[in-house]
Amino acid sequence: MSAKRGFASDNNAGVHTRVMEALLSANGGHVLAYGDDEFTEAAEARFREQFGEGIEVFFVFGGTGANVTGLAAITRPHEAIVCAETAHINVDECGAPERFAGCKLLALATTDGKLTPAEVEPLLARAGDQHHVQPRVVSISQATELGTVYTDAEIKALADFARTRGMLLHVDGARIANAAAHLGVSLRELTTEAGVDVLSFGGTKNGMMYGEAVVFFDAGRARDFKFTRKQGAQLPSKMRFIAAQFDALLAEDLWLQNAAHANRMARLLASELERIPRVKITRRVEANAVFALIPREQVASIQKRFFFYVWNEETSEVRLMCSFDTTEGDVLELVSVIKESVG
Amino acid sequence: MSAKRGFASDNNAGVHTRVMEALLSANGGHVLAYGDDEFTEAAEARFREQFGEGIEVFFVFGGTGANVTGLAAITRPHEAIVCAETAHINVDECGAPERFAGCKLLALATTDGKLTPAEVEPLLARAGDQHHVQPRVVSISQATELGTVYTDAEIKALADFARTRGMLLHVDGARIANAAAHLGVSLRELTTEAGVDVLSFGGTKNGMMYGEAVVFFDAGRARDFKFTRKQGAQLPSKMRFIAAQFDALLAEDLWLQNAAHANRMARLLASELERIPRVKITRRVEANAVFALIPREQVASIQKRFFFYVWNEETSEVRLMCSFDTTEGDVLELVSVIKESVG
Amino acid sequence: MSAKRGFASDNNAGVHTRVMEALLSANGGHVLAYGDDEFTEAAEARFREQFGEGIEVFFVFGGTGANVTGLAAITRPHEAIVCAETAHINVDECGAPERFAGCKLLALATTDGKLTPAEVEPLLARAGDQHHVQPRVVSISQATELGTVYTDAEIKALADFARTRGMLLHVDGARIANAAAHLGVSLRELTTEAGVDVLSFGGTKNGMMYGEAVVFFDAGRARDFKFTRKQGAQLPSKMRFIAAQFDALLAEDLWLQNAAHANRMARLLASELERIPRVKITRRVEANAVFALIPREQVASIQKRFFFYVWNEETSEVRLMCSFDTTEGDVLELVSVIKESVG
Amino acid sequence: MSAKRGFASDNNAGVHTRVMEALLSANGGHVLAYGDDEFTEAAEARFREQFGEGIEVFFVFGGTGANVTGLAAITRPHEAIVCAETAHINVDECGAPERFAGCKLLALATTDGKLTPAEVEPLLARAGDQHHVQPRVVSISQATELGTVYTDAEIKALADFARTRGMLLHVDGARIANAAAHLGVSLRELTTEAGVDVLSFGGTKNGMMYGEAVVFFDAGRARDFKFTRKQGAQLPSKMRFIAAQFDALLAEDLWLQNAAHANRMARLLASELERIPRVKITRRVEANAVFALIPREQVASIQKRFFFYVWNEETSEVRLMCSFDTTEGDVLELVSVIKESVG
Repeated sequence: MSAKRGFASDNNAGVHTRVMEALLSANGGHVLAYGDDEFTEAAEARFREQFGEGIEVFFVFGGTGANVTGLAAITRPHEAIVCAETAHINVDECGAPERFAGCKLLALATTDGKLTPAEVEPLLARAGDQHHVQPRVVSISQATELGTVYTDAEIKALADFARTRGMLLHVDGARIANAAAHLGVSLRELTTEAGVDVLSFGGTKNGMMYGEAVVFFDAGRARDFKFTRKQGAQLPSKMRFIAAQFDALLAEDLWLQNAAHANRMARLLASELERIPRVKITRRVEANAVFALIPREQVASIQKRFFFYVWNEETSEVRLMCSFDTTEGDVLELVSVIKESVG
Repeated sequence: MSAKRGFASDNNAGVHTRVMEALLSANGGHVLAYGDDEFTEAAEARFREQFGEGIEVFFVFGGTGANVTGLAAITRPHEAIVCAETAHINVDECGAPERFAGCKLLALATTDGKLTPAEVEPLLARAGDQHHVQPRVVSISQATELGTVYTDAEIKALADFARTRGMLLHVDGARIANAAAHLGVSLRELTTEAGVDVLSFGGTKNGMMYGEAVVFFDAGRARDFKFTRKQGAQLPSKMRFIAAQFDALLAEDLWLQNAAHANRMARLLASELERIPRVKITRRVEANAVFALIPREQVASIQKRFFFYVWNEETSEVRLMCSFDTTEGDVLELVSVIKESVG
Repeated sequence: MSAKRGFASDNNAGVHTRVMEALLSANGGHVLAYGDDEFTEAAEARFREQFGEGIEVFFVFGGTGANVTGLAAITRPHEAIVCAETAHINVDECGAPERFAGCKLLALATTDGKLTPAEVEPLLARAGDQHHVQPRVVSISQATELGTVYTDAEIKALADFARTRGMLLHVDGARIANAAAHLGVSLRELTTEAGVDVLSFGGTKNGMMYGEAVVFFDAGRARDFKFTRKQGAQLPSKMRFIAAQFDALLAEDLWLQNAAHANRMARLLASELERIPRVKITRRVEANAVFALIPREQVASIQKRFFFYVWNEETSEVRLMCSFDTTEGDVLELVSVIKESVG
Repeated sequence: MSAKRGFASDNNAGVHTRVMEALLSANGGHVLAYGDDEFTEAAEARFREQFGEGIEVFFVFGGTGANVTGLAAITRPHEAIVCAETAHINVDECGAPERFAGCKLLALATTDGKLTPAEVEPLLARAGDQHHVQPRVVSISQATELGTVYTDAEIKALADFARTRGMLLHVDGARIANAAAHLGVSLRELTTEAGVDVLSFGGTKNGMMYGEAVVFFDAGRARDFKFTRKQGAQLPSKMRFIAAQFDALLAEDLWLQNAAHANRMARLLASELERIPRVKITRRVEANAVFALIPREQVASIQKRFFFYVWNEETSEVRLMCSFDTTEGDVLELVSVIKESVG
């Protein structure tokens, strides 16, 4: 399937040219390992530009690693993590949070992948009762696994709620760039200023080869994180290569351009699909995902031309993800293939 | 310190040119994530060429991740892992094995970083007694953290011992390439044919940017490993980029050339240092490490020119690591700096 | 509140006289610790009488301990345990299963606390997919936390389903005696013959001071359990005192008499309450629990006389538990207090 | 072997008469479960009498449970627990601390089972280095597994050392009563005033049927312990029966009388054995253990009359434990059997 582009996932894409150039540039000579190098220093400075001087940032290998180490850093095993039933940490990480943090996840059914304070509230009824896990963290995905986006006001409401209940707000931001692009707000407004406590900041899905970042907005909570990262097997030895990628991604707003482009392609795709009578868009298109009902009999033949996943076998709802490298041509070709198939 | 080479660690080096070229080549178009791609298939075939058709191989992000997932796959938490006191899993992984596998490590003091069956034997005295952890795995480092190498006969002896005692043999092969280069034997002789059960095969220290492999020599033990890898946050999404690196490393014996070169530089360094009266080589130089006593007062000034670590503060024993990219010029310059310093 | 009886829980009761006598009798001289004694041997024989010669039984301190060690023995951390949302392991053990076994619990909403194969089935849709935890155990409570009872046929159906899907059936039998008494079947019919794999057999709620048993119906699965029990801090040193209690409980069917009595008291309570117009029985009364709606304003005043818990604050549904030592007088007095209060 | 007394372990003894009477007395009527009862309140008051008003005390089922929950409460998984190589937590708990707390144990070789600040000091060399576990707790056994006792001054020295290094002092006091009896100091002098942070206070080996206590000397550290206890499966439901036992043990100094008696029997045994030419006492007799070399050929025949364990097979060193119920007659009979055997 190489040299071709599909709609299966934004991690099916490769590496953005400027990121690749950064990797090449970082390859001269020796530097100290594990982050004690100039590349890491520079990349950390980029994060402070985006999120403010008070943050602490740590680079890790992958998205599951970012989530589980970040969550473990702010919980004890008898505490619970509240999340949406659709959350990546709940369904797509093979129980990594439970195993590494020891915590129970309390997953709430939602219609759009988003949580509200009112939904979390009832879970606190048993606070202080030794028989029950104690909700300590609200973890949200931004953008969600359903392609929806929390506004900065919604995040602030959750953060305020958490704070008044002695809880913390964690954001799985594997696609936070897409959320920021959609909202037209800065990363700082969406996190630091909204009151987020810990953020997994995604690199891989937005044009990097590998590498994510864990951002702590209160440096005090980051005090022991270097040990948690190492114990979680998420400390890269040749750290400069993750740092260099982040440096490239955050420089000159490449992160935003990539995300905005992917979102734009998703909107284009949705608007084109809406014109096809037998196809129905099922969810708001806010980030880079389009969910649509496609007649079951046609799915397999369309997949032969462009790969994508069926999200819900029962309803024949499919998920179409756009990437930083998705082209208008890709979109129009997919639309034409679908149109042709479903007639 | 960039654009310069030191002797602090083989992970201070960058990426070998051919590996970097492989990364560039792998960057066209979309491929499925998580290993369901042609690059991964090709790299796996390379591993089978080296280790035999019966193996199963899995790529992971890093060395600690390779060790802890490989060990967790073959233990239950009440079982113990026997290793040398100097083992990376015992001292350099911040307790990751205990946390992820739940197991106790039983660490034995050694003179040269190597274990023998006779040393492991007494730990089995309490087999079957419910009060005590049950030794299940012997884990050795090849080459060891002290720069020494197990011969294939020594590994076979440990594997045979393990087998007769209902135990398994795990090899932390972050530097197995250096061991094979030193011994002049194939990877297969050193592992498959010697009776190894699970191997962490190192890529990063031998010219890759990131990426290690976990090799199971009995496919049955690998049955659930894909879940253990994911739960251990060691499943790379853009897998093709690790696969492409391994493909380059294993093709045309680049792995062996890199390791042999690093070993050669270590031998050159040792033989030059031996001529300096106030410097004393302290351990056998078999892989790419040279350990030497250097007068305490001179260490800091030498470190200003070439970075390296003091291994033992008390005795002023230093560790000098050579890499695939260490040049004769680097070695001779270091020797000349030392000579000058110590007089 | 001592020297009085309430309806809060069957663990508010004390110790049955014959159990207490057994404790006194067991107190002469020294015996080996940790189960290597004649009392333990005798109690194990009693279990084999009840469950068959092929079982292995292990005594532990408490109910949570029985569940978590039994579940950990038959799972690996990437595997999931399917249970009812109301299951004790899901809501009343403060996350002990997740922490000790490392596993995720997949909790299903039910109307009566009971699971069926058809409800479990959809959770297997992602079997084999490395991103998702792999359902390995169905765990049911018998009797359930809602006072309902699985028939032996229903258990057999679940066991058969589990078997064909490569899963195992675990029973939290903290109140299995009450279930057997309700059904009028033997423990063997309800477990061994129905195809149960692992059972937590409750002693404490049925007249013992402390002590539960973990029963394995396939001895092979019990091979390493003594280590799991010890590592789970559930190995009593003065084991004879748990063994002597179980001996007394299983001798001359004391277990069954106690349970049958508690059930009878529950039925009496339910039938009396049904006559009170403003009180409504909400769930089938099969074991020793009665759930009823009592007007909210009256609850506090009734609780002053007899303690019990409000199960659902919103609906003012209360839970009334009967014990082996509940008397008809207690029941009638409670009924009269309620009648008087609600008018 | 019942109705007889041996020297295998102090947990081979039964239950002291006054403790048994307390169990009988506690058996009337219903009380709330899980510690919300008058018995628990009374027993907690007894602990405050002994240790001071500022403590928090929690009852648990067993000794391993007391240690692992107490240690987990004051560590995070990347932190290490420093202990003697002979410590119960290191060799006799089947890896329970590693599994439950996730922590690594750093075990130091000792001659007498005791640690000093000077021995712990070197383990702090890597403080702050992310590759290494971070020593957080010094855990000592009082009395030690070798029958030796820390003076209050020695404990104070360790506590002071710990404090200045940001560490905490944990005491496994399964036999702290024997230590206090030996030293003739109060429990308060030995713990609260010496600066201990967390104590496992032993009940079972000193005349109770089951039950241990975890004492926190800084209530702040106990804040979440009720959850840790429950999650660790160490929350007894019929709590009154542990509480009543502790009440009896702490009332009228029964704890001290029992321990002093056992110690006295050990001294008698040692002084009698010293007169036998071919028997050699190998360790200081401070608590209730006597270690002695007995000619190998005679061990088995002596064991037929009185059970005890061989501590060191190589040297034929045996361990002889005295209990609260060991009589002078038992001691003299054992001595006579040994004398007869070794000639």
